Amino acid sequence: MTHSPLDPQQLTADLIRCASVTPEEGGALVLLDKVLSAAGFTCTRVDRGEVSNLIARWGDKGHPRTMGFNGHTDVVPVGDTNAWTVDPFGAEEKDGFLYGRGATDMKSGVAAFVAAAIDLVQTTPPDGAILLTITGDEEGDAIDGTTALLDHMDREGEQMAVCLVGEPTCPDEMGEMIKIGRRGSLSAWFTVTGVQGHSAYPHRAKNPLNAMVRLMDRLASHELDQGTEHFDASTLAVVTIDTGNPATNVIPAQTRSTVNIRFNDAHTGAELSDWLRAEAARAAKDFGVDIAVEIKVSGESFITPPGPLSDLVSAAVEAETGRKPELSTTGGTSDARFVKNHCPVVEVGLVGKTMHQVDERVEIAQIHQLKSIYGRILRDYFDQN
Amino acid sequence: MTHSPLDPQQLTADLIRCASVTPEEGGALVLLDKVLSAAGFTCTRVDRGEVSNLIARWGDKGHPRTMGFNGHTDVVPVGDTNAWTVDPFGAEEKDGFLYGRGATDMKSGVAAFVAAAIDLVQTTPPDGAILLTITGDEEGDAIDGTTALLDHMDREGEQMAVCLVGEPTCPDEMGEMIKIGRRGSLSAWFTVTGVQGHSAYPHRAKNPLNAMVRLMDRLASHELDQGTEHFDASTLAVVTIDTGNPATNVIPAQTRSTVNIRFNDAHTGAELSDWLRAEAARAAKDFGVDIAVEIKVSGESFITPPGPLSDLVSAAVEAETGRKPELSTTGGTSDARFVKNHCPVVEVGLVGKTMHQVDERVEIAQIHQLKSIYGRILRDYFDQN
Ligand SMILES: [Zn+2]
Ligand SMILES: [Zn+2]
Repeated sequence: MTHSPLDPQQLTADLIRCASVTPEEGGALVLLDKVLSAAGFTCTRVDRGEVSNLIARWGDKGHPRTMGFNGHTDVVPVGDTNAWTVDPFGAEEKDGFLYGRGATDMKSGVAAFVAAAIDLVQTTPPDGAILLTITGDEEGDAIDGTTALLDHMDREGEQMAVCLVGEPTCPDEMGEMIKIGRRGSLSAWFTVTGVQGHSAYPHRAKNPLNAMVRLMDRLASHELDQGTEHFDASTLAVVTIDTGNPATNVIPAQTRSTVNIRFNDAHTGAELSDWLRAEAARAAKDFGVDIAVEIKVSGESFITPPGPLSDLVSAAVEAETGRKPELSTTGGTSDARFVKNHCPVVEVGLVGKTMHQVDERVEIAQIHQLKSIYGRILRDYFDQN
Repeated sequence: MTHSPLDPQQLTADLIRCASVTPEEGGALVLLDKVLSAAGFTCTRVDRGEVSNLIARWGDKGHPRTMGFNGHTDVVPVGDTNAWTVDPFGAEEKDGFLYGRGATDMKSGVAAFVAAAIDLVQTTPPDGAILLTITGDEEGDAIDGTTALLDHMDREGEQMAVCLVGEPTCPDEMGEMIKIGRRGSLSAWFTVTGVQGHSAYPHRAKNPLNAMVRLMDRLASHELDQGTEHFDASTLAVVTIDTGNPATNVIPAQTRSTVNIRFNDAHTGAELSDWLRAEAARAAKDFGVDIAVEIKVSGESFITPPGPLSDLVSAAVEAETGRKPELSTTGGTSDARFVKNHCPVVEVGLVGKTMHQVDERVEIAQIHQLKSIYGRILRDYFDQN
C-alpha cells in the first residue's frame, strides 16, 4: 500500500477555513479526526464544558516510548474585520504567505506535526507510539482544554514519555529559539478604601491614594531576584491605577490598581501572594486604610532542564535550518504549563510575529520546514530510544 | 425727613427671588441699585465680559475714612430641583428659616450690610464714606467680578480704608468665628508618559506608573510646614490618579494625576510651583520618562494680622452675640483674596452650614443679628476714626 504524503500547507489552509474562535470547534477537530483516523490513528473526542478536544494515538496505549505533541486549533477573535486585507477565514495565498486567523498560532503547527506523524507511521512505522493532544481551548480560560486531555489520559492509562508543544517560538528567524520552560504569571488587584473629605482638610479624611502610591512604589522598586540558571529575573509591573475623581477639592474614598508579576523558579505563586498580602497589610496599617487584595495565579513557572529532550530537538532544528536554537524561558504562557506535570516538555515552532494580529500570516516555506523538523525529531527519537 | 428702616429679611427674600445663578444678573443688582440709589448712594454698574457688578458709594469719593463692604449676589446652581422641599427661588419662610438658593451664601449678608449702611446714613450720617462693592461673579471663575470692581476703583480714584467681606464665617453658632486671612490654593495636573509594552518584558517598556507612584509618594509625604503664627499647616492632597488600562498583560504608555495644595503664608504659589516642577523633573530623570506639569494657582494666601480692624470687628461681634470670635484663617477661598491687595480686609458673616446644599436656608434671626453687627461696626468705625 502506498500513500501520497499529506500536504501540511493544504491541511493548514483547510484548518484556517474552520472558524474555530474559542470555544467554537468550527470543524477543525472533526477534520483532524477524519485525517488521523484514515491514517490509522485511534481518535477520541474529549469534550468538556463547552470545549472540544481531540486525542489521537498511533501504537500501543501506555507504550514507554511514546512521543507526544500538543497543540490547539482554537484562535483569538479576528477583531476589526475591515482592517484585514483578506478574509480572516479564507486561507488566501499571496507572495509566499498563507493568510488567516490561526495561520501562525497555531494551525500551521498542528498541521505540521500531524503531517510529520502520519508520514512516519506510513513510511517507517516506529517501535513505539505517538500521542497527539489537540485542544479547542488554549486562547480562552484553558480550564477545559489541555487539562481535560491530561485528566482523560490519567483515567485511561494514556501516557507520553516526552512532549513537544507546537506553538510559535521564534521571534524573527526560523530555528533561532526553542522554549524549555516559562516563567509563571500572577495578577493582583488592590482596592484601597479610606475616608472621603474636602481637600482643604486632609486630616479629617483618610486619603487612600497616600497608601496606594506608597504600596505601589514599594512593590515596583522591590527586586524579586536577579534571575536564575535558566531564567531571566522575575518582573513586576504596576499596569494601572484608577480613581476616577474629577473634583480637585475632594479627597476620594477609594482607588484601585492592578499588578502583574512574571516569576521564575525562585518563586511560587503562593509565596508571592503571601508577600503581596503582607505588603498590603503593612500599608493599610501605616496609613489607617483598608486594602483588599484579589490574586489570580495563571501559572507557575516550570522548566525542563537542558538534557536529552532539548538536545534532540536542538539537533533536529540545527540540521533542518542551519541554526542552533537558543534554549529560552521567555515569553508569556502556554499549555506547556499543564503538560510539564505529565512529562518533560519542550516548545518548538515557527516565527510568531503576526500572531493575534490583523492579517495574521505564515510563510509557506516555514510550514514545510516545520514539518521536516518534527519529522526529524520523531525519527531521531525512535532511533535513539 | 423720616424713613422707615429697610428690612434686611425682606431684602434677602427679594434677592432670593432673583434667579442669579452665575453669570446671570437675575435682577439682583438692578434691585440693589434701586434701593441704594433711593437712599442717596451713587450707584455705578461695572459690567465686564458676561458678568454684572455694582459699586455704590455714600459720601465723598476717595475719602480717607471710607469703610468698604464686599459681597456677591450670584449663586451656585440648584442641582437636583426635585431634591428640594421648596422652590429654590421661592424665598419660602418656615419654622424661623428663610429658604432658597443664596439664603446663606450670601444674599442675606448683602442684604444685612446694605440695610446697615442705609440705616447709618439715614440716621447718623458719618463724617466719612461707605463704599459697597457687589459682584455677580464670585461662584464662577471670579475673573470679571470683584477684580473688575477693584480695577474700576483704581481707574476712578475710588478707595476704601478697610473692607469687610460678608461671606458666612461661622461653622455652627452665630459670632463664633471671623476670618482674617485664608490659605492659598493651587492645583497641579501631572501627565507621565513612558513607553508602552508587554508586562512580561518591562525592561523593553518604560512604565510611567513607576515614576508616578514615586513622585506622588514624595509629594504626599513631604511636610510643607508645621503651621505659622496665624495659619494651620499647609496641606497637599493627591486627589486622583488615573490610567484606564484594562489589560493585565500591557504596560500603559501614560498615566495622569491631580494634586491640590492649600498653603499658608510660609509659601507662595510660585515657590510651590517651582518645587512641584523640580520634583517632577527629578522623577522624570530617575525613571527616564516624560512628565508634563500644568499648574493653576487659584489664590495666594493672605492675612490681615490681628490689629485695629479685627479688634473693631471682634468687639462688635461680642457685643451683639455675647461670643468672642475666633480669628481664623481656615476654609476655602473668597473674594477677600482680591480685596486684600487694596486695603485691610476681614470676613464676618453668619453660619454657613447649608451653603451650596439642597434646601439652603438662613435662620431669620441671624439676618437681623448680622445687620446689627454690621451697624455697630460702622458706628464704631466712624466714632473711632
Ligand atoms: Zn497559541
Ligand atoms: Zn459666597
